[in-house]
Amino acid sequence: MINTAINISKVSESKFTSIDLDNVTFGTIYTDHMFFCDFKDGEWQQPQITPYQPLQLDPSARVFHYGQAAFEGMKAYKDEHGDAWIFRPEENWKRINFSARRLAMPEVPEEVFMNGLKTLLEMDKQWIVPGKGNSLYIRPFLFATEAGVSAAPAAEYKFMIICTPVQAYYKGGEVKVKISDYFSRAANGGVGATKAAGNYAASFYPTNKVKEEGYQQIIWTNSTHEYLEEAGTMNVFFRIGDKLLTAPTDDRILDGVTRKSLIQLAKDEGIEVEVRKVSVKEVTEAARKGELKEVFGAGTAAVVVPITGVGYQDEHFDLPKLDNPYSTMLKEKLLNIQYNITEDKYNWTQKI
Amino acid sequence: MINTAINISKVSESKFTSIDLDNVTFGTIYTDHMFFCDFKDGEWQQPQITPYQPLQLDPSARVFHYGQAAFEGMKAYKDEHGDAWIFRPEENWKRINFSARRLAMPEVPEEVFMNGLKTLLEMDKQWIVPGKGNSLYIRPFLFATEAGVSAAPAAEYKFMIICTPVQAYYKGGEVKVKISDYFSRAANGGVGATKAAGNYAASFYPTNKVKEEGYQQIIWTNSTHEYLEEAGTMNVFFRIGDKLLTAPTDDRILDGVTRKSLIQLAKDEGIEVEVRKVSVKEVTEAARKGELKEVFGAGTAAVVVPITGVGYQDEHFDLPKLDNPYSTMLKEKLLNIQYNITEDKYNWTQKI
Repeated sequence: MINTAINISKVSESKFTSIDLDNVTFGTIYTDHMFFCDFKDGEWQQPQITPYQPLQLDPSARVFHYGQAAFEGMKAYKDEHGDAWIFRPEENWKRINFSARRLAMPEVPEEVFMNGLKTLLEMDKQWIVPGKGNSLYIRPFLFATEAGVSAAPAAEYKFMIICTPVQAYYKGGEVKVKISDYFSRAANGGVGATKAAGNYAASFYPTNKVKEEGYQQIIWTNSTHEYLEEAGTMNVFFRIGDKLLTAPTDDRILDGVTRKSLIQLAKDEGIEVEVRKVSVKEVTEAARKGELKEVFGAGTAAVVVPITGVGYQDEHFDLPKLDNPYSTMLKEKLLNIQYNITEDKYNWTQKI
Repeated sequence: MINTAINISKVSESKFTSIDLDNVTFGTIYTDHMFFCDFKDGEWQQPQITPYQPLQLDPSARVFHYGQAAFEGMKAYKDEHGDAWIFRPEENWKRINFSARRLAMPEVPEEVFMNGLKTLLEMDKQWIVPGKGNSLYIRPFLFATEAGVSAAPAAEYKFMIICTPVQAYYKGGEVKVKISDYFSRAANGGVGATKAAGNYAASFYPTNKVKEEGYQQIIWTNSTHEYLEEAGTMNVFFRIGDKLLTAPTDDRILDGVTRKSLIQLAKDEGIEVEVRKVSVKEVTEAARKGELKEVFGAGTAAVVVPITGVGYQDEHFDLPKLDNPYSTMLKEKLLNIQYNITEDKYNWTQKI
């Protein structure tokens, strides 16, 4: 590292007060500042915070051609005392570097990531709106900037953090999912476990296909379409009887921070959790017998998303409406920790 | 389409004469102009040609986050009369739209693609240097520009064409390949058959791994690692005895223009060509018996790349040095058509 101190250039006037946060579409308005750090000549350059502004890139920049790009999703929360919190940020730092290694990009030093994150949040703290459900979505991302269309890893990269205020990701409406028996999001020995940009592009067309059938998301299956892997862009949990099932992470399945937090919370509630391959057969058979009580997605953006129905080939299974579903209980427990409402015995949260 | 006529803004002075083309690294110098056409409000806008220049993009532009991006590779050649030629451009137009559909991007109208391509080449014709081996590499590409980090297909895109002078892609040196028994470049029901940017990012780390073992490229295998699919970023052919084998295109294997042209040329030379699944087992067994005579890669950038050795797990097979290999013969036949040296009975070439 040439110089680890962040070179800061502030906006002359915040645009915060001019924005009607109640009527903002997720991910369209960004806070006053952005953080970035360039990698070139084999090393990370001095990190910078500047007013949020467009980037200039050569048309031959590698990211447009060879897709070396990965991101993270995180959130900052404000408690009733006005203190701001982030949740397990070291997991996101580790995972962006897992993605970086698999996509042949340089790893982001812990200091660049953490210092950038905390300084940026400190500067744009007023954008973290108090109240459960409100949060500031944080998007760290890393991509290849080097000019030149030679199909090889780039020598130059940019790591950035931008932030956008968020209320609820899935604004109401039911979420029904269809189990894929043709499309896959990830290959064996591929990049499914990373948050590679290309994984998302590959998922849109199959998702559009299930939308045409009246579903909102696809449940991805393995290469033989026998095992359930993820739902849309989330990890997925199945409750059969009183037992909670979710697939183990591997080279196709993302090691989700929400996923692992929910597993811990569920176990500590005395729920039996099995982390193992979950077959299409056992889930559809349980559904036919009325034993499939819940299915829910888990991810940073949406936190916990209860699924109301599951389709597979020509069958459709509506899930029962329970009085006290695991999904609601676990989501509440997680949110209460994230918003500093209950004690965080896990040391998951960090004060900004 | 709002207006199909290209809005043209020319450079005041070409930079062509100031560049020493003999000492240019592939893909680092671009011609004087670039073509682009934006998609927004549900339609393609007026196409433009401007001086080659940087792009301005919001940090939240979807291409950085969700990887909606695909490209094509083509070449223009100059014959001894000074006429410039392109090779099967309609195949590239069809394929970028195949990629576009699978990545949930809008298709590029034929007129935008072809008119843009031909007008740009006409304007930058002096950059197509005569002489076999010299060519102008053409890079059409399409990517999501819309600002906003919501994980959904973008509503705004840019289609561009940029050009870079090229001599030889693999400048000398042998190419040895290692057969993958762990990594995959494509999933069943995935995007391997497209030229999605993310496919290339995913391939770099496994390629680096085989480089550490002294190989230059990886031969990709299917999800069970039993069948041979592609070599690096090329299609791959195997000659066992006097028979030529190559994998059929499917949802994991790119429908290469060079690949299909070589199949045609080989058949017309009376060579027995089998387009079918090629197993690791049969190729390694043939190698052990000395019956594996040739392996070569085929792609636009490198045309035909003879492979001198193949590794699989702990074995390594050096390939024989033949007097008249198929690879050299087929490459010459193809180049002679591309450079308008021999008659093009296939109607593959088009004059600019």
